[in-house]
Amino acid sequence: MAAPHPIVQYTSQASWAMVEDKFSPFAKETLAKLITFYEEEILPARRLSHAQIPDDPVKRWQTVIPVIEELKVKAKKQGLWNLFLSKAHYPEHGVPLTNLEYAVMAELLGRGGHMAPQVVNCSAPDTGNMEVLARYGTPEQQKKWLVPLLNGEIRSAFAMTERYVASSDATNIRTSIRREGDEIVINGHKWWISGAGDPRTKLHIVMGKSDPGNKNTHQQQSVVLVPSNTPGVNIIRPMKVMGYDDAPEGHCEIIYDNVRVPLSNLVLGWGRGFEIIQGRLGPGRIHHCMRSIGAASAALDAMLLRVTDPAKKTFGKHLYEHGSVVQDIAKSRADIEGARLLVLSAALQIDNYQAKGALKEIGIAKFVVPSMALEVVDRAMQAFGAEGLCQDQELASTWAGLRTLRIADGPDAVHLQQVGQRELKRVPELLKRKAELVKRENALFAKAGIKSHL
Amino acid sequence: MAAPHPIVQYTSQASWAMVEDKFSPFAKETLAKLITFYEEEILPARRLSHAQIPDDPVKRWQTVIPVIEELKVKAKKQGLWNLFLSKAHYPEHGVPLTNLEYAVMAELLGRGGHMAPQVVNCSAPDTGNMEVLARYGTPEQQKKWLVPLLNGEIRSAFAMTERYVASSDATNIRTSIRREGDEIVINGHKWWISGAGDPRTKLHIVMGKSDPGNKNTHQQQSVVLVPSNTPGVNIIRPMKVMGYDDAPEGHCEIIYDNVRVPLSNLVLGWGRGFEIIQGRLGPGRIHHCMRSIGAASAALDAMLLRVTDPAKKTFGKHLYEHGSVVQDIAKSRADIEGARLLVLSAALQIDNYQAKGALKEIGIAKFVVPSMALEVVDRAMQAFGAEGLCQDQELASTWAGLRTLRIADGPDAVHLQQVGQRELKRVPELLKRKAELVKRENALFAKAGIKSHL
Amino acid sequence: MAAPHPIVQYTSQASWAMVEDKFSPFAKETLAKLITFYEEEILPARRLSHAQIPDDPVKRWQTVIPVIEELKVKAKKQGLWNLFLSKAHYPEHGVPLTNLEYAVMAELLGRGGHMAPQVVNCSAPDTGNMEVLARYGTPEQQKKWLVPLLNGEIRSAFAMTERYVASSDATNIRTSIRREGDEIVINGHKWWISGAGDPRTKLHIVMGKSDPGNKNTHQQQSVVLVPSNTPGVNIIRPMKVMGYDDAPEGHCEIIYDNVRVPLSNLVLGWGRGFEIIQGRLGPGRIHHCMRSIGAASAALDAMLLRVTDPAKKTFGKHLYEHGSVVQDIAKSRADIEGARLLVLSAALQIDNYQAKGALKEIGIAKFVVPSMALEVVDRAMQAFGAEGLCQDQELASTWAGLRTLRIADGPDAVHLQQVGQRELKRVPELLKRKAELVKRENALFAKAGIKSHL
Amino acid sequence: MAAPHPIVQYTSQASWAMVEDKFSPFAKETLAKLITFYEEEILPARRLSHAQIPDDPVKRWQTVIPVIEELKVKAKKQGLWNLFLSKAHYPEHGVPLTNLEYAVMAELLGRGGHMAPQVVNCSAPDTGNMEVLARYGTPEQQKKWLVPLLNGEIRSAFAMTERYVASSDATNIRTSIRREGDEIVINGHKWWISGAGDPRTKLHIVMGKSDPGNKNTHQQQSVVLVPSNTPGVNIIRPMKVMGYDDAPEGHCEIIYDNVRVPLSNLVLGWGRGFEIIQGRLGPGRIHHCMRSIGAASAALDAMLLRVTDPAKKTFGKHLYEHGSVVQDIAKSRADIEGARLLVLSAALQIDNYQAKGALKEIGIAKFVVPSMALEVVDRAMQAFGAEGLCQDQELASTWAGLRTLRIADGPDAVHLQQVGQRELKRVPELLKRKAELVKRENALFAKAGIKSHL
Repeated sequence: MAAPHPIVQYTSQASWAMVEDKFSPFAKETLAKLITFYEEEILPARRLSHAQIPDDPVKRWQTVIPVIEELKVKAKKQGLWNLFLSKAHYPEHGVPLTNLEYAVMAELLGRGGHMAPQVVNCSAPDTGNMEVLARYGTPEQQKKWLVPLLNGEIRSAFAMTERYVASSDATNIRTSIRREGDEIVINGHKWWISGAGDPRTKLHIVMGKSDPGNKNTHQQQSVVLVPSNTPGVNIIRPMKVMGYDDAPEGHCEIIYDNVRVPLSNLVLGWGRGFEIIQGRLGPGRIHHCMRSIGAASAALDAMLLRVTDPAKKTFGKHLYEHGSVVQDIAKSRADIEGARLLVLSAALQIDNYQAKGALKEIGIAKFVVPSMALEVVDRAMQAFGAEGLCQDQELASTWAGLRTLRIADGPDAVHLQQVGQRELKRVPELLKRKAELVKRENALFAKAGIKSHL
Repeated sequence: MAAPHPIVQYTSQASWAMVEDKFSPFAKETLAKLITFYEEEILPARRLSHAQIPDDPVKRWQTVIPVIEELKVKAKKQGLWNLFLSKAHYPEHGVPLTNLEYAVMAELLGRGGHMAPQVVNCSAPDTGNMEVLARYGTPEQQKKWLVPLLNGEIRSAFAMTERYVASSDATNIRTSIRREGDEIVINGHKWWISGAGDPRTKLHIVMGKSDPGNKNTHQQQSVVLVPSNTPGVNIIRPMKVMGYDDAPEGHCEIIYDNVRVPLSNLVLGWGRGFEIIQGRLGPGRIHHCMRSIGAASAALDAMLLRVTDPAKKTFGKHLYEHGSVVQDIAKSRADIEGARLLVLSAALQIDNYQAKGALKEIGIAKFVVPSMALEVVDRAMQAFGAEGLCQDQELASTWAGLRTLRIADGPDAVHLQQVGQRELKRVPELLKRKAELVKRENALFAKAGIKSHL
Repeated sequence: MAAPHPIVQYTSQASWAMVEDKFSPFAKETLAKLITFYEEEILPARRLSHAQIPDDPVKRWQTVIPVIEELKVKAKKQGLWNLFLSKAHYPEHGVPLTNLEYAVMAELLGRGGHMAPQVVNCSAPDTGNMEVLARYGTPEQQKKWLVPLLNGEIRSAFAMTERYVASSDATNIRTSIRREGDEIVINGHKWWISGAGDPRTKLHIVMGKSDPGNKNTHQQQSVVLVPSNTPGVNIIRPMKVMGYDDAPEGHCEIIYDNVRVPLSNLVLGWGRGFEIIQGRLGPGRIHHCMRSIGAASAALDAMLLRVTDPAKKTFGKHLYEHGSVVQDIAKSRADIEGARLLVLSAALQIDNYQAKGALKEIGIAKFVVPSMALEVVDRAMQAFGAEGLCQDQELASTWAGLRTLRIADGPDAVHLQQVGQRELKRVPELLKRKAELVKRENALFAKAGIKSHL
Repeated sequence: MAAPHPIVQYTSQASWAMVEDKFSPFAKETLAKLITFYEEEILPARRLSHAQIPDDPVKRWQTVIPVIEELKVKAKKQGLWNLFLSKAHYPEHGVPLTNLEYAVMAELLGRGGHMAPQVVNCSAPDTGNMEVLARYGTPEQQKKWLVPLLNGEIRSAFAMTERYVASSDATNIRTSIRREGDEIVINGHKWWISGAGDPRTKLHIVMGKSDPGNKNTHQQQSVVLVPSNTPGVNIIRPMKVMGYDDAPEGHCEIIYDNVRVPLSNLVLGWGRGFEIIQGRLGPGRIHHCMRSIGAASAALDAMLLRVTDPAKKTFGKHLYEHGSVVQDIAKSRADIEGARLLVLSAALQIDNYQAKGALKEIGIAKFVVPSMALEVVDRAMQAFGAEGLCQDQELASTWAGLRTLRIADGPDAVHLQQVGQRELKRVPELLKRKAELVKRENALFAKAGIKSHL
């Protein structure tokens, strides 16, 4: 038997065996390169990348973290770049990797915190934004925005969520987008706009209502490209997540106050905003899930080190010899393994049937994985004691980031509902099968001369 | 794209896509045949097979259920027979199916209750017993016992668990097996001996202590073949599981009172009993798990029909429109999908590395699946109301059967412990990786001229 | 400090201290007598009472269990009789005990299985039926049925649940109750009629529709007294619960086929059936809950004995030294203590505000306690291994009985919904408070000269 | 019936009825005053108190929050002061309130965030420190430190937890405390020292090892009073909790570097440190628990407002009409009610039997309440969406604070273990009862002439 691929030390042998035969030689090789790069370059730079963000409440938002920029150059040189963009779906700009292949890489990146995806130009919200531009952008829009994004020269934001409004239902959106002559005028109050704080962010992709009276509630919305330095783009403040401001990117409150852009900044066409956001969400959700699994997996590794640390013995025993620690570890391992296979199968489903044909699988991944990862990380925090909650470990900030995933891109309840409803659609088929069965059962009872109570 | 394999309506499209390329053409064809046979023959006979067991407390233990015997003939004729016995591991008697391939079939069989595996001669404890005889039996033992078992002419019991003793630790076993001249004499008090009540059961494979003073506690045990009609084999009573006696097979209390068999009935050799039971358990656990998943999956289908039944509307709404029913359905679906992939990956691991190389994966399956299935079935029972608990639905007896799986072949706690301990063995490797990382981190901090708090 | 009341060894010192000062001297004394009687008479007879039920599928339904009848005589003589019937609510027939006082006794009775409440004439469904007759019966009805019930001479059934119908919504009931001259004619198909199998059961209290066209859907129902030997009362079969038939009482399927009774058998008046069942349910639910807590508490005690049993050591350790056993015990203890206090506070609420004023508290008890008790018993079953599931321990039948309580008298979901909706009714009051708060907050901010982001 | 006490709108009518008769008239009156003060003064100032903390990373640690100081004056004037210090245990300095009475007040204070307890001089760690000084301090120590603490003029820290060491096992502590002539010299590295950042904190109560070689590991420790401005007291940095620094109090890392204090600063005596910390923990844990319940209760109220907010409708429905929201609310209500009664019964147990006699009840409260409160707050966060995680709502910071309580004063696992072990101590008594029972059972079987399988 050939030597096992190095990925088995991060994923598991059993998971890898399920997908190995679906990997192209190119994908295997890229994965191996990524592992080396992750171990030798990305992970060692993680703590430094935090340390390079100043504490000062103003300066931290003006920072371009040096070590990340250095690593981006190296990564690009090695071809570890834009791995998320599948050539199958984006023939022009994409890389020859399937969603399944990238999913395995995304788990690895998820072990490296917030910075790892950035280093290989695979971080949200840029990924989704590049997909939008690649799929729906005009050549001119692509030249101006997509190319520098693909090159990692700029970053971008996606402005959809609104303050004072339940904008997870897109029909509630209030931001106004209207034409005035050759211009588009935008007025609205957004918040939770990730990345908008970053000095490298040059583009806001803004969703709003261009035709609020349209009877078809899914044709009221449009999407417009807004350069971040356009007059009227007012960044109010960063929203914090459990106390973290996530500088320099941040999740910002923004008021668009009579912002004016040329007509050519409209994406795809008037009233096609809903269509655009629909197309944007599928694979991105899977990436989030795989990164979450990576984060959980790294937390479990950290927990293993902690509970066997001789310096942390209490009452003469290692931590792992107390209470249910070993059982908690076993559960975390099982949870991670099960969740990973679920997400990989969803990624494969996307490869086979596009995101549209994988909505059930994506929905399942979306409500299963963040809760699972939160619990794994929480167990690790508990094993670390107070240290697990503080700035010296990655666990607490990881937890905070994961917690947002139970809300972002649709709260758990929406995905549970959607998956449950899809199950209910199986009922007609089940009824048919049941009728057939009862007919056969009755025939058998009749033949046997036995009466049934049913 | 070719028409999807019919299995996708029982498993899911996404699960199937993960394993389809690992199926041989023969396995795919056998699976398709099995589906047809399951739909047209097995499932329709399920309720009749229950009805053919008399209520009378004596006669129910003397019954050979007619419809099952009829179906066995049909199944054998179609080659749907002994599917569990992988040729790769049992070249002489096995069928050309991998554990992974059979696992998918086992899920289907698990939908058909207790009877389905019997119909295709794949039911416990015969499966494990055939494995023992095929692997360790002498030609003479095989001729006398294995051949009729493989033919489905007789059934068998495996007598290990003992009353008054914590026999899950095999070193606690008290049954005495000793040589007297050309004979072996057996004395012991067993219970929970599944299948011992069945009139077709002709063989007990009995585990006991032949050398209780041996310092190596794993060489004290021997295994002996005992014809069920040997004088001194006293079946005391059936043990019930949650009120079910599972007649005619049953789970019996047995006293072996000076039972004498010829020396040639010893299996493998004196003191090799522990080795035999170790080898017996791996794939069987996976079969149980896959059947449990099938049972859970069938329960979810039943729940779907119930909550959409217009006759069960309350307060003007279908059941599914109340409370958290849709969410419960979604959770059950997700739980089933995740668990299935876990067990399939364990089966693949067995195919790749034998049971010994798959202990972690088997352990995970063993503690995850029964609890998962119990919860899915419990949700379905709740949806059915009181009817869900009674004899008119399969749910309650399914629940009872699944509940035993949290205990049989090792209680949950043992598997959790085992898996957790295996994780702890990764610590030296993690420490090495961590040391490497810290070295690199420190170098980066030094180069950047920043001091760290860690 | 005086010696503690003997109840503290069954409930806890901390629980008892919360209610002791609410107990009358009579109640304390009665409780002490009940404890002695429970220890010396009831509990020792429990296993015998099971053994006195024949296995024969016919005879078991004709049995009056001798030991129970003997104990009833003794209990009555000691005044341990009808303890459930609070004089405060039933001045004529009641005993001078509050619901809170009886609740503590009910927990003790719940430790003694199904038989204990019978011995002191406090077992369902007789209790609720006596309440109905005491509250709504005519003097003649009371003389004929209530008196012998209060004397423990006969038993009774309450026939509400219907087959083929979602009868938890009483407006779905189909049984027809109509007047024909001086007679009432009843036609209907019921099931799950507890106690109807008992040879001592002489009375069915039947709910049906007398005015199905009434626009007020809560005035369509009437309740009629039906002697069990009336022609047309056809008991079809016992329904089983998880494999248990609960003979001789049973939970029966019954067809009322043109059953005729005199007009004087109508209870309370035409169209008042809904009112009757509403009044019937409050305290009874609390009794069930307290008994469930007693059952859970007894299961925990059994678990404690098992996990410290030296005969059950495995791998050189007591069971309690393995895995999470000690933690499971701690959780069970905490769950029991919390649940008990919840139910006691609900009982007190009934004493203070009648059942109507305690609907939230009753609802909470109803959805919290059965699930809690099931989990405690399940943990105990797991500690016992296979033995915990069988007829040699009370755990499995206890579990089965408890499982029905998540459905009987309204499934969990109904109570969750009801309690949640009651919480929502607090919103107007909360809004008022919030408005007041914001006003004050704004004044403070204004005074301090600070602007807020809210 | 008299008008209900105003507390029923914060606690519940049912909880209150359980304890009302245990309240003195003084306690009822004080509680009523506290409610008015909470509504009119404390709660309205909460947001302002946050706004008065500067963002500047240096200045925020030098701040004395003006509004809190103003409110302290008002509270003291009204006698709402030092309510935690029970006269029964502290005759000289205490207020005439029992632990039970204060517990109800602590819940109310817990609704008002971090600041509320401070306003009435009941905030940790001062409370425990005042108890230490009141119980163990010399008159001189009391005059110098206890009096200004009781007056709210200064604050204090308790320095026990150590970096690099598992100090939850006090025998692991490394800080050295040794005598040098008339002085005590302290060297050690602590962290998580709450309150140490506060400019008002003038006293550190430091625990260390004075006799590390003592065979009795519980006599190695001593406790010393250290003025915060003593040379060598080096505050290194604030530890963050889930991103929060909790300025100005903070949880600090401190190096005690050759700190010298006079001999008279020793508390109680050499080697009595363990005794001191033992006495310090009981009631304080209950206070934490009751405040946590208040926090959970306030979160549920906030959730109720959110899910009924018409501005947050999605897809045409209020939030509460979606999914399991109503059920989640019901569960949160039940969880809060059950937990409150548990903690109140623990408080009563302390009143009756001192903390030593209430260890089981305190332990239960300690592992039940924080997890319960975390879940209730988490459900509320989820209902609020992203807003629930940010600085505009109290939920996220509440969650972070509660999370520490699963670790502080002993992690969950320690309390679970302790409670479970106490349960195991009941086994001898249970065995005795069981033996008695079996004797009686056997007699009954013998008399009935029936043989048993057991």
